[in-house]
Amino acid sequence: MVFFKVKKNIPEATIVRLSFYLRSLNILKNEGLKTISSKKLEERFEVSSVQLRKDLAYFGEFGTRGKGYNINNLIKTIIKILDLQKEKKVIIVGAGHLGQALADFQGFNSFGFKTIALFDKDKEKINKRTKKGTPILNVDNMEEFIKKEKVNIGVIAVHPSSAQEIYEKLVGAGIMAILNFAPIQIKEKENVLTLNVDLKIRLETLSYYLKTGIYKPKK
Amino acid sequence: MVFFKVKKNIPEATIVRLSFYLRSLNILKNEGLKTISSKKLEERFEVSSVQLRKDLAYFGEFGTRGKGYNINNLIKTIIKILDLQKEKKVIIVGAGHLGQALADFQGFNSFGFKTIALFDKDKEKINKRTKKGTPILNVDNMEEFIKKEKVNIGVIAVHPSSAQEIYEKLVGAGIMAILNFAPIQIKEKENVLTLNVDLKIRLETLSYYLKTGIYKPKK
Repeated sequence: MVFFKVKKNIPEATIVRLSFYLRSLNILKNEGLKTISSKKLEERFEVSSVQLRKDLAYFGEFGTRGKGYNINNLIKTIIKILDLQKEKKVIIVGAGHLGQALADFQGFNSFGFKTIALFDKDKEKINKRTKKGTPILNVDNMEEFIKKEKVNIGVIAVHPSSAQEIYEKLVGAGIMAILNFAPIQIKEKENVLTLNVDLKIRLETLSYYLKTGIYKPKK
Repeated sequence: MVFFKVKKNIPEATIVRLSFYLRSLNILKNEGLKTISSKKLEERFEVSSVQLRKDLAYFGEFGTRGKGYNINNLIKTIIKILDLQKEKKVIIVGAGHLGQALADFQGFNSFGFKTIALFDKDKEKINKRTKKGTPILNVDNMEEFIKKEKVNIGVIAVHPSSAQEIYEKLVGAGIMAILNFAPIQIKEKENVLTLNVDLKIRLETLSYYLKTGIYKPKK
């Protein structure tokens, strides 16, 4: 039985790294491995073993000295920490290229998440479906839909000029967690979890490492 | 004159945070501010002042005790550190929804970066343009194009089943920095800077904070 404590306000970077560890561990599991030492993890995925221990220490004691980590147990633990065992309903606002890409993206429709609808105001798009079948609905009916379907997460993929209005509609309809892809600073409401995704940041990271000539960034 | 030293292999998280600081500082500059204390930065953008000092310390000494940071100077410094004063040529492979969204995304066509072409194998798409005018070219001509145009960065936005093949073509044509959006583990070549963007990670971060009831993650 795995036990873990939940400390308040753990750094976001730790949570992001947990997702990264989860991916790495799943790859190892698919290769048939049962245990792995932190040194091997470090070599294979450029995970810092010191950082890994620090990150996991927020939640308890894992790994046995000399034996490494039990891969299956650690996967289960991270899934519990990230609360991925419970499927969350996701909607995406904006059925442009980005919205449709996200709706059909495997990660938005697998373990932990299900994108159940896209919303748009464009009559050409409404009542059609994405390539993989997610329905595109009229944004005028969004608030009613959110309440009826008890949607957990709203994703903003509209033009920056509409992003604030859509944010307020999502919050007004009771959504507590929002992922914003529009490149503007949202005026955030209190008590609503708002994360911004800035696709340019990775380009800037590349730019930095191109300059330094370092091709394996330290995690 | 701003001086900064470049240490080897600074943690990737520090570089990512520099991008975040740059955005925050630009917002303040646009509001007409000249200086800001680390305390104010902390309140406004949930930037940890301890973390900020630690991150900047890799590059030198900034800010004057009691006076805070000179916004303009700090912006210039971060631009130099990230090497954004020099425009880099970007190409995107895969003109599906994601590729077209990225090509037309402001961040891929502003300060530091210019997306000059998309590549695809689909004859229906070749020789057309995205909404904002980026040309879609035949992937068969990609290697020649990369050499002729001296492309700096390649972005992979193809189906996971083609991602490895495209990666190898990009590297073969001389690209040294690659941003991969395909949700697979690329077998990376040595001496090629390869960053993976996993759009699901932010959803998992939301999931964690939804569970804890914390709506302002600690940076």
